[in-house]
Amino acid sequence: MTQPLFETICFVGIGLIGSSLARAVRKHGLARRIVTLDLSETARRTALELGVVDYATADAADAIKGAGLVVLGTPVGATEEVARAIGPHLEAGAIVTDVGSVKLAVIRDLVPHLPDGVHFVPGHPIAGTEHSGPENGFAELFEGRWCVVTPLSGGEQAATDKVIALWRGVGSMVEVMDPHHHDQVLAITSHLPHLIAYTIVGTANDLEGHLQQEVIKFSASGFRDFTRIAASDPVMWRDIFLNNREAVLEVIQRFTEDLTALQRAIRWGEGEVLLKHFSETRAIRRAIIDAKQA
Amino acid sequence: MTQPLFETICFVGIGLIGSSLARAVRKHGLARRIVTLDLSETARRTALELGVVDYATADAADAIKGAGLVVLGTPVGATEEVARAIGPHLEAGAIVTDVGSVKLAVIRDLVPHLPDGVHFVPGHPIAGTEHSGPENGFAELFEGRWCVVTPLSGGEQAATDKVIALWRGVGSMVEVMDPHHHDQVLAITSHLPHLIAYTIVGTANDLEGHLQQEVIKFSASGFRDFTRIAASDPVMWRDIFLNNREAVLEVIQRFTEDLTALQRAIRWGEGEVLLKHFSETRAIRRAIIDAKQA
Repeated sequence: MTQPLFETICFVGIGLIGSSLARAVRKHGLARRIVTLDLSETARRTALELGVVDYATADAADAIKGAGLVVLGTPVGATEEVARAIGPHLEAGAIVTDVGSVKLAVIRDLVPHLPDGVHFVPGHPIAGTEHSGPENGFAELFEGRWCVVTPLSGGEQAATDKVIALWRGVGSMVEVMDPHHHDQVLAITSHLPHLIAYTIVGTANDLEGHLQQEVIKFSASGFRDFTRIAASDPVMWRDIFLNNREAVLEVIQRFTEDLTALQRAIRWGEGEVLLKHFSETRAIRRAIIDAKQA
Repeated sequence: MTQPLFETICFVGIGLIGSSLARAVRKHGLARRIVTLDLSETARRTALELGVVDYATADAADAIKGAGLVVLGTPVGATEEVARAIGPHLEAGAIVTDVGSVKLAVIRDLVPHLPDGVHFVPGHPIAGTEHSGPENGFAELFEGRWCVVTPLSGGEQAATDKVIALWRGVGSMVEVMDPHHHDQVLAITSHLPHLIAYTIVGTANDLEGHLQQEVIKFSASGFRDFTRIAASDPVMWRDIFLNNREAVLEVIQRFTEDLTALQRAIRWGEGEVLLKHFSETRAIRRAIIDAKQA
């Protein structure tokens, strides 16, 4: 092992993202010791048995002691509770980061509980699957994917640099962004698509029995792609919507206006309106392919 | 070659689906001769150069002569025009089928133009990609996928059986269904998902320039899955929406009500409503995986 970035990293919450990052840290030799703080006995046992962590505990003081980096991998709605639990045990010079899909709310809930001399560098890896739990993590999850880092104004540059080095070390590309802007961008690229997918799958779920069976049978005609997204972790997504409310409500409004316009074109048989709209959306797909994000 | 199902099959329109079926027919020895009627010189030349068809023409009389099976692979909005062109040339005993995503409108537009003794057996393979044109077809497109066949009441059973044998011959599973019911099922499994995807990608397309660039960059967070669907053929989809209007408007209405309920839960911070909804939608994904359609 070359000189690792951190002596000890503590993962608070060892779910899909936490366990994937822990595996990647191990694979790339970025820490000497990997610890987890998780309230779930099953998660702790699984992480230990799979060799994802060296030590697992439900005791905050025990877990945080000696950690040079603490990574929050808990649902964003749990941030304040987690902050109260770990805050008193954080050591001066320690860095805290997170992987949450919203940034302003995490900053709001975490910062008041941090002792002086502890540096918070919010982060958000744009990676994941519809599966949950430490058994579904894998070290390659972040390779070639973006990670957005949203440093606090007045935050210490050296701490930001170490968090960026961590993400680059596991194969990610890093984008630095203002946290407010992050929440707006993610509202359209991630939160709205998930809400729409959850909605349409729920609409199908409410159909009468025999029709529902046929929806499942013929799901390959488009519906299927939505069900994968709508199988994502329910608690995580509840917390995202409740904690990025303003930005999400704004994009729902835009979306609904656009849907109403297409609905009206269908009702009145305005083929040229539909054709124009459907032709324009192809350009975005091409841009995504060109950006190698397809 | 064992005894083929048909001596000559004529594909009217040699796009993605037509050219895939032509390739599959060739691969499985289901016809002795494969012909296409297509108004696009480029499509005809491509299909000939790739060996997808034995003969290609823009002349209806020339193409239809001697065809035991005629497969319509044109956008559903073109059905009446195609029916007028080929109707006078169809020979007694010939079978006509189609691959359209709506069935009632195709029946309405085609049947009046069929001579006596010609059998129409509507069909719809639940298969496709976001690409178009004969160069993107492939023989394996239908393997393991469903094909819905919606025979007319009073239609000849022997003709239905031959169309079913064709689809089974290219590897599909066949489901026989009433055409009205087909249009309702597809409205929810296919037409609504496509409309939603076209809408959300359009919403993103209208964003200011720098935000649009970031949407493309961070599309892996959910948005990307919608862009693939929204890259489907614009003319084909315009025609589908205009020709399955009642069923599509009905499911848009249901969807909008459900979205409004979730929007309200976000606005008022009703976490338990969101959690319940997001947990229920996971069951549908599991059912799709169990049905081996994932």
